[in-house]
Amino acid sequence: MGAVGTSSSQPATSTDRLARQMRFALEVDQLKNVLRRTYVTGSGRPENSAEHTWHIVLMTVTLAERSAFPNLDVLRVIKMLLIHDVVEIDAGDTFGYDTAAHADKREREVKAAERIFGLLPLDQAAEFRALWEEFEATATPEAKFALAMDRVQAVMLNLAANGGAWKEHGITLERILERNAVIGDGVPAVWELVKQQIEALMAAK
Amino acid sequence: MGAVGTSSSQPATSTDRLARQMRFALEVDQLKNVLRRTYVTGSGRPENSAEHTWHIVLMTVTLAERSAFPNLDVLRVIKMLLIHDVVEIDAGDTFGYDTAAHADKREREVKAAERIFGLLPLDQAAEFRALWEEFEATATPEAKFALAMDRVQAVMLNLAANGGAWKEHGITLERILERNAVIGDGVPAVWELVKQQIEALMAAK
Repeated sequence: MGAVGTSSSQPATSTDRLARQMRFALEVDQLKNVLRRTYVTGSGRPENSAEHTWHIVLMTVTLAERSAFPNLDVLRVIKMLLIHDVVEIDAGDTFGYDTAAHADKREREVKAAERIFGLLPLDQAAEFRALWEEFEATATPEAKFALAMDRVQAVMLNLAANGGAWKEHGITLERILERNAVIGDGVPAVWELVKQQIEALMAAK
Repeated sequence: MGAVGTSSSQPATSTDRLARQMRFALEVDQLKNVLRRTYVTGSGRPENSAEHTWHIVLMTVTLAERSAFPNLDVLRVIKMLLIHDVVEIDAGDTFGYDTAAHADKREREVKAAERIFGLLPLDQAAEFRALWEEFEATATPEAKFALAMDRVQAVMLNLAANGGAWKEHGITLERILERNAVIGDGVPAVWELVKQQIEALMAAK
């Protein structure tokens, strides 16, 4: 690939660049049609991945002070979260406790990332792809914090729904704690709080 | 009101502070039940204010380079947008072209802001309230850019729906252009593009 704007498939004019940005902006509207296993509180309807993302970005701003990492780059966490589920437009949402579906998840999602981020100008496509890979690898402080927000929001909604998707799919306390322990890597105090709530809920059933 | 954590209604312990933050995080889930007049592309269902907000925050990151303002604080734009519609949980969404409903909009929304942001610790309640007031006043570069994103996303979805809410409610070209001209204050190139698209669509009907 050439430098930004010099590829034959990406003309260099500002108008074409804007057209690509607006095409991407319209395409991602489809994330609103991707349903998750969690439920919107009190409504009984499944949450979609777009509104889920808004929720965890707002939680990021609210809970950044709880970060396990002293110099967290909050703007990079936000950018990472904004696009972390966009691949689901093609690849669908994979339920966190569905081991079989996780087998080809990576392959499906990489194809989706290439198509969807590929709608953007090359430099922005590369930036968003790198942010998505960073989230997937969970190695940086920003990715660890982002993952903690992603997980704690689902825990919060399942707790509010008296077990919600956990009870529906027969997920054991052990698996819930195992899957969500990463919350403690990003926001230790939050994990301590919700861990107690999970244990209390599962003991009461 | 006293300083942070010293008010009798807001105990100073870290646990209580976290409890307030999590209470707010759960409360804002209700924004997913507030419906707008725009439609999700291809689905025929009305968009809700939570997924709308995710969309305009992602558009902010994608289109920040188009800003009319050279030193835009993107993180502040994002924070402003994340909470700009939260008052709708109590006050409902007010259709942009509904003049009558706009009469008591401010009063309804101020009450909502007091209740909902008031769930947070005092310092965060004050920060979010100030960001909301900044958005409402549309005086700073960040607020002007944020409003442009809010408006251009609705325009984009109405264009994609062949007129959508505009045709449904009989809104004239003149009113559409008048309401959305503020897009040009935040992102001039984007307004130039969508203005042409609006004119072409309305001429074709």
